[in-house]
Amino acid sequence: MNIMVGQSGGPTAVINASLAGIYRKGKERGCKVFGTLNGIEGLLEDTVKPLEFSDRDVELLIKTPSAALGSCRFKLLDSSEEKFQSLKQAFKKYEIDAFFYIGGNDSMETVEKLSRHLADTGIKFIGVPKTIDNDLDVTDHCPGFGSAAKYLCTTMQELILDCNAYALHSVTIVEIMGRDTGWLTASTCILENPPDLIYTPEMDFSVENFLEDIKYLGKRNIVIAMSEGINLGYGYRDRSYKDAFGHLQNAGVGKYLAEITNKELGCKTRAVELNIVQRCCAHLQSTFDVREAVQVGEYAVDAALKGETGIMTAIKRLSDFPYSSEYFTVPVNQVAGKVKYVPKKWLTSNSILPEAKYYFSPLVGSLPEYFTLK
Amino acid sequence: MNIMVGQSGGPTAVINASLAGIYRKGKERGCKVFGTLNGIEGLLEDTVKPLEFSDRDVELLIKTPSAALGSCRFKLLDSSEEKFQSLKQAFKKYEIDAFFYIGGNDSMETVEKLSRHLADTGIKFIGVPKTIDNDLDVTDHCPGFGSAAKYLCTTMQELILDCNAYALHSVTIVEIMGRDTGWLTASTCILENPPDLIYTPEMDFSVENFLEDIKYLGKRNIVIAMSEGINLGYGYRDRSYKDAFGHLQNAGVGKYLAEITNKELGCKTRAVELNIVQRCCAHLQSTFDVREAVQVGEYAVDAALKGETGIMTAIKRLSDFPYSSEYFTVPVNQVAGKVKYVPKKWLTSNSILPEAKYYFSPLVGSLPEYFTLK
Repeated sequence: MNIMVGQSGGPTAVINASLAGIYRKGKERGCKVFGTLNGIEGLLEDTVKPLEFSDRDVELLIKTPSAALGSCRFKLLDSSEEKFQSLKQAFKKYEIDAFFYIGGNDSMETVEKLSRHLADTGIKFIGVPKTIDNDLDVTDHCPGFGSAAKYLCTTMQELILDCNAYALHSVTIVEIMGRDTGWLTASTCILENPPDLIYTPEMDFSVENFLEDIKYLGKRNIVIAMSEGINLGYGYRDRSYKDAFGHLQNAGVGKYLAEITNKELGCKTRAVELNIVQRCCAHLQSTFDVREAVQVGEYAVDAALKGETGIMTAIKRLSDFPYSSEYFTVPVNQVAGKVKYVPKKWLTSNSILPEAKYYFSPLVGSLPEYFTLK
Repeated sequence: MNIMVGQSGGPTAVINASLAGIYRKGKERGCKVFGTLNGIEGLLEDTVKPLEFSDRDVELLIKTPSAALGSCRFKLLDSSEEKFQSLKQAFKKYEIDAFFYIGGNDSMETVEKLSRHLADTGIKFIGVPKTIDNDLDVTDHCPGFGSAAKYLCTTMQELILDCNAYALHSVTIVEIMGRDTGWLTASTCILENPPDLIYTPEMDFSVENFLEDIKYLGKRNIVIAMSEGINLGYGYRDRSYKDAFGHLQNAGVGKYLAEITNKELGCKTRAVELNIVQRCCAHLQSTFDVREAVQVGEYAVDAALKGETGIMTAIKRLSDFPYSSEYFTVPVNQVAGKVKYVPKKWLTSNSILPEAKYYFSPLVGSLPEYFTLK
């Protein structure tokens, strides 16, 4: 049996761990394993190679961030019949029996379309979940999220200590990835000394209330966790500025709000944009995240061998403490194009309620313990 | 004997390790140890407290980033005779025999001034070096630098893997701390897969040559290490833009050059500003950095007990591989207000020569090993 793997969308700290899981289980089951470089885009250009990893390679691969096979952002349209025919030929050339696509919402749409348009080929099309955004539906959480959250919480803890070093009135706004959902930002609620304010895209946000929230705290050295996807509402258009060439640009939300805060409240402000470091921080992989990333890959291979297609592997949480989970499959059309939001019941207007810690803590795992002067 | 410790300037990942060294050695020598909160500024406001740490506290303190006693940026002027008198009273109140100030260039100026203006008190004034910028003169390197460089190199390695995931022509500019010197930026030369271009403030820089350097590389996914203090020359003034309130602001160097590159070369560009995370990244402390940070503190206490004053403790490198070093003292006026630059002999116009690796590698220590598809 020949199987093929591709990686798609934004890299994570554990997307290669899922590749390792698929490779290892595939080999264990006697399969020949092919990789398509840069996902579906590479397959259309026939940049396919047989994968042969040593045990040491697999061990390293599990720890390595980014997408070892290369990634892509490629949208397959239902109307591109010609592209589906090219892909069919490519699969035929390598006599592929099962295709595994590791990715997020968009990649699950691709799996859904492939399983529909190429149903007659008998190829099994399996989605393997991956996203630091944690916004895939049905699955309890997504591989990639735990490690990104561990990086974020570790760094946030260090930033808060750093910001407290000076006897100043200061506001530091940490801009965190998450265009539609605030899972990552919300995860900072698990810290013993959490950010003073936490804002996610699920909350009603207004610049006026934001400034009131800061004033109400009445403390020095305020640190704020802010999703990049916060809805700025009426103030949104003011974010634009002219760059060196006179072109309109959008400042990041953090920088924009830091400017407003400085202007309105007169205190020292700073914006910290954590940027793509959040998605490639493999030196802070979370233990359960790595384990589950490998295992959703392994589970996917067995699902294909059992004849499943048009599905995504997913994680079911069995208990929080001690943490345990198991895997299952879900029809990919129940996931593709959907977005899972942080539950309203966990949100106030500017913070996350303590009950959310049960969800986040085991996914993040251990954090460094630091000294505080009493 | 009563001793007092203060911390000053930008926090680092190991400034508390020096505090731990001073505390531990002071206690071992039978001293009573006081801390002044927020450095000299706190001393003027009498925010002084006796320090009593358990062994566990000391252990945690060594691993904890930021300044546990709080920091300040306070410039003592030779003309402020009244401030010196207040400080004299404060030292007298606690019957202080030796004062240790952990900091960078500015803090060494403070130590120099104190030892001159308060010479008649008999108090020993000792500077303990600390700066991620590594720009203190005489000492081979500064505690704080190795850990910041380890964070930077680890993150740079992950960023480079991340940027290579897509089949794109892209330029990513990573903006790195260092206003006057490029030590941190230069340290990325030790990577097996280093940034494609490295620019430090010691180099002659022009935007024209920079764009030529990128074109000359002729490869996709270019990653550039850029000191924040690069001299932009003629283009400098163009960095200003108007914020949401119509006020002139300066974009960071990285963002500014990313905009120019996008405009002139038409490729996808991105600026990543590592920001203050570089100086508080205690989860990536470098082994030798921690050890030396503790030991320069311990050495300082013994120097004071021997009657030295107006000095800074410094590090002498004995060998690169295996790394070893010893400590000595230097008159603080040989260090105060001076800046040590990256040696010209290590620099080309856009990279760092391999011989510099002998200097940087032991300070950084081990880095994660990652997989690359062959």
